[in-house]
Amino acid sequence: MAENKIEIIRHSTAHLIAAAVLELFPNAKFGVGPTVENGFYYDFDLPRSLTPEDLPKIDKMARQILKKNIKFVCQELDINEAIGLFQKADQPYKIELLNDIKKFGTTDVNKQTEIKELSNNKVSIYTLGRFVDLCRGPHISSTQSLGAFKLTKIAGAYWRGDEKNKMLQRIYGVAFENQQELSDYLKLQEEAEKRDHRKLGKELDLFSIDDYVGPGLVLWHPKLSIVREQIELYWRREHYQRGYQYVYTPHIGLSNLWQTSGHLENFQEGMYPPMLMAEKDEIEKTKYYVKPMSCPFHVRIYKSQLRSYRDLPLRFCELGSVYRFERSGVLHGMLRVRGFTQDDAHVFCREDQFVDEINKIIDFALDINKVFGFDKLNVYLSVRDPKITDKYIQNEHIWKFAEKILEEILVKRKIKFQKDIGGAKFYGPAVDMKAVDSLGREWQGTTIQLDMNLPSRFQMTYIDKDGKEKTPIMLHHTVLGSMERFVGTLIEHYAGAFPVWLSPVQVKLVLVNEKHIEFVQKLASEFKKENIRVELDISNETVGNKIRKAANEKVPYMLVIGDKEAVSDKLIIRDRGSKDTREISKEEFFKEIKEKINSKK
Amino acid sequence: MAENKIEIIRHSTAHLIAAAVLELFPNAKFGVGPTVENGFYYDFDLPRSLTPEDLPKIDKMARQILKKNIKFVCQELDINEAIGLFQKADQPYKIELLNDIKKFGTTDVNKQTEIKELSNNKVSIYTLGRFVDLCRGPHISSTQSLGAFKLTKIAGAYWRGDEKNKMLQRIYGVAFENQQELSDYLKLQEEAEKRDHRKLGKELDLFSIDDYVGPGLVLWHPKLSIVREQIELYWRREHYQRGYQYVYTPHIGLSNLWQTSGHLENFQEGMYPPMLMAEKDEIEKTKYYVKPMSCPFHVRIYKSQLRSYRDLPLRFCELGSVYRFERSGVLHGMLRVRGFTQDDAHVFCREDQFVDEINKIIDFALDINKVFGFDKLNVYLSVRDPKITDKYIQNEHIWKFAEKILEEILVKRKIKFQKDIGGAKFYGPAVDMKAVDSLGREWQGTTIQLDMNLPSRFQMTYIDKDGKEKTPIMLHHTVLGSMERFVGTLIEHYAGAFPVWLSPVQVKLVLVNEKHIEFVQKLASEFKKENIRVELDISNETVGNKIRKAANEKVPYMLVIGDKEAVSDKLIIRDRGSKDTREISKEEFFKEIKEKINSKK
Repeated sequence: MAENKIEIIRHSTAHLIAAAVLELFPNAKFGVGPTVENGFYYDFDLPRSLTPEDLPKIDKMARQILKKNIKFVCQELDINEAIGLFQKADQPYKIELLNDIKKFGTTDVNKQTEIKELSNNKVSIYTLGRFVDLCRGPHISSTQSLGAFKLTKIAGAYWRGDEKNKMLQRIYGVAFENQQELSDYLKLQEEAEKRDHRKLGKELDLFSIDDYVGPGLVLWHPKLSIVREQIELYWRREHYQRGYQYVYTPHIGLSNLWQTSGHLENFQEGMYPPMLMAEKDEIEKTKYYVKPMSCPFHVRIYKSQLRSYRDLPLRFCELGSVYRFERSGVLHGMLRVRGFTQDDAHVFCREDQFVDEINKIIDFALDINKVFGFDKLNVYLSVRDPKITDKYIQNEHIWKFAEKILEEILVKRKIKFQKDIGGAKFYGPAVDMKAVDSLGREWQGTTIQLDMNLPSRFQMTYIDKDGKEKTPIMLHHTVLGSMERFVGTLIEHYAGAFPVWLSPVQVKLVLVNEKHIEFVQKLASEFKKENIRVELDISNETVGNKIRKAANEKVPYMLVIGDKEAVSDKLIIRDRGSKDTREISKEEFFKEIKEKINSKK
Repeated sequence: MAENKIEIIRHSTAHLIAAAVLELFPNAKFGVGPTVENGFYYDFDLPRSLTPEDLPKIDKMARQILKKNIKFVCQELDINEAIGLFQKADQPYKIELLNDIKKFGTTDVNKQTEIKELSNNKVSIYTLGRFVDLCRGPHISSTQSLGAFKLTKIAGAYWRGDEKNKMLQRIYGVAFENQQELSDYLKLQEEAEKRDHRKLGKELDLFSIDDYVGPGLVLWHPKLSIVREQIELYWRREHYQRGYQYVYTPHIGLSNLWQTSGHLENFQEGMYPPMLMAEKDEIEKTKYYVKPMSCPFHVRIYKSQLRSYRDLPLRFCELGSVYRFERSGVLHGMLRVRGFTQDDAHVFCREDQFVDEINKIIDFALDINKVFGFDKLNVYLSVRDPKITDKYIQNEHIWKFAEKILEEILVKRKIKFQKDIGGAKFYGPAVDMKAVDSLGREWQGTTIQLDMNLPSRFQMTYIDKDGKEKTPIMLHHTVLGSMERFVGTLIEHYAGAFPVWLSPVQVKLVLVNEKHIEFVQKLASEFKKENIRVELDISNETVGNKIRKAANEKVPYMLVIGDKEAVSDKLIIRDRGSKDTREISKEEFFKEIKEKINSKK
């Protein structure tokens, strides 16, 4: 097995934990103990249920064994000999596995379709002190070479994942090469948990996903709707400035549209089932589909007029809400949903404009991502998976040509990129620019795709200089991806503390004493007049509670209005995250906020 | 029959036309000749097809008869006597009608379900000169008392509307009490045709409705999308200022949502058929419906938090795209569609806030309608039709109470209104404020509805001052109605010449001579910098053609840039609709446009 060092360390740590469990529970029966992302687990059948208090005990025992610097010893045994060994040790799960190996040549139940005896009748056994395991290895030489680890949780797990089998007890852990890496990982985990958009979404009243409405369908609450609106306004302005024209198209379309577009042929599994009109109307025996993409609608608008070479490039954009079916198991908050609003754009251009248009879109994407603090983008050239070419529209020549041109553009711009084999859409290759957030995590956002499908399917044309009909080139791109995923990402990226220009509430006025209510209301209306989003807290809570509440709401500026503030000609500001206050004149404060808004800070 | 004067005139004119046809075609067989909106028609079986050239001849003959001042003479005949009369005149259609009357007591085929003989065996016969007709009357006394009329068109029509019968020839006409009324009507018709939004929609490249996409589904082209966006921006700002919070909700929802809301019970015929998830996923055996209304989603957002009496009124708004099934026959451009974006809002309030909230919405509606030049609103109090109470949710007490309160509000405000019996929604009564456009036509727009259904169905609550759970009152309103209908109305209202603030292109720069291209481009970028929507025409067309094109596009300001203009320090402006030009400094012109934009002119 060609496993890398960290995998070997993680797997060896699983053995160490098993050895520790054996010390504490001499009658323990052992299941399996593989590696998982960042760590490992091991399944046990124990005489009693483990409690969270057991974890430190097991941890302590494991570290005692570790200190003894025991060797991982490998033995090759005849399979019957091995069965005898585990019979003596009273390890029924290991015996079951060995019998499977003997019969099918594998322990993987999914591969046990036919009897296929083990060729050489040998299996490997690893011993760590008193703990003996059936194991393919490899392992490190001795416990001294183990890295840093931490046991993280206990869970129940059916033996071999089958609910007809006995429920075993699983201990999870994480392991890294050294303490620094482990600490970094744990810190990142802690930070990521704090920033989880689902958690913050609830705490800050940002959005909900509701069983009554449907899985993967987001209800945007008022506060997050303001964030979205600000982004949409900015997005539209940027598109207008770059020569895009906004269009509005419907959310449903007749089946013949999706037939012609090729979606029914190539994308049906991603579409919601059809609405059958025959149920409704005897005359209209058609089907409608909720749109999974807006492209065919934009193509129809293109086709509503005769187009000349002079009209190109024609750039349409739309914040188009689309619906795609995904198994409910893979859905994740706002980040993986079924209904989302794509920040969609289509560029129709001539061949001589194509490279220039791609470059313009790359510039565009770099600019916009920067505004949201995504200075680093991981760039991928998404190409076909050559092993499953039937997944893609068939035109070998054009695929090769298109993939080559996109690669040349990136090379010429000296943009570092990786190839994403199989990352292409069914209709063409793409350049994907993934944003890296404040925790170093990568988020899907910008995609620039060549559509080699729709122009010919819809027989799109323009009249060229020579009076002849030509087929335009069609580019599809999103800069943000979807409003749902992008704003979900932003919640985590900013940990809910949106920059001033996006903050649902920019200024919170906390009233200390009823007698200043008129003062506070007048102040609020002055903020409103300056188009600053202001909220009053005039509730009966204590001042301490109100201040805590505003701090929890992550409002950028808080003004606590008491006797002193009500007579002062300056404003006293508490900046978000700071315990101190500062004094500033009203005019300066307006100016400060407006400057932040204008500069998207 | 209690028919009013104009109806009697129209019906008598139909007889006059029939008499004229008899003079010109002595063998004409006569079908029926009822009144329709603004006029009448008469169906004939003639030996040859009529051509448009026949209309003036028939008109001339009719006027000759009219001049003779012939009397309309009524006779009561025994039905068999009448049959004999028409047998002698060889009028088979009249005989068929008489036989029906004899047998069923009516000529209406839909009411001929059982044999029901005529009671007194008498029918009335009207004679106008040589023309004799079976007719219930009444008629005017003589042709002298006829008003002004005009024959408008010829069409084919099956006898008794049944395509199995012979196709007869129908002559349509309009008739009014006097020449002035007729002229006014014809002028209005002509103007309305010129303003038809479907015609202008094509000419100005505003929108299309596409067989590929589906009937009643609008594709908004770039120019009309700008109009819509400007209205939406204004709409949102107005809602924010009035304390509304914007929300975004999905376009599809699970069947249990529509079950609970009562839509499946009370509104299913208006909904698109369901999407059956069992087709997709064996686990998820649910149904989804495309939303016909956004209300249930807003209710779910309300319910996502515990609400206190202090939180109320809570006002949610959304530009929500909804889809409703309508027979394709009733669809009409953008004015009657299947997919539309409602400018939706829901107010959740306490009982003591209810009257105040309604008054605020009325103020709101009056303000917004005025901005679009709809100074006159026809107000309706939409109440139940007491004859079909099963169409409405069942709560006699609350219906009476609610209808009374709405009426009191209108009375107190001294707003003139009519009752629209049967105009209520299934869930409650409404105040409808219909806009009257520049041609005096009435358009459905603002509706303020009380929802007596959803709060209880979804068990909505708030915690009142006394700590007890109470049910909030729910109001639903739209100010514009839907973006499709409202913008379609605006196209007709403004005859495509949108005010400056809404114009897709505010300033058109027409280049006379290639050598000034840099000057024109620089000028364009200055307009852009001032956020003024500018378009260049640098095509190879003649200047005359370019000017004509810009005029046809109904752009508010045109600047033709030639040698003189390129060196002048003033701009030379052609205002829309004016043949003259005027000189103005750039700064003044920017100011003028911005003032118009800011004041929504």
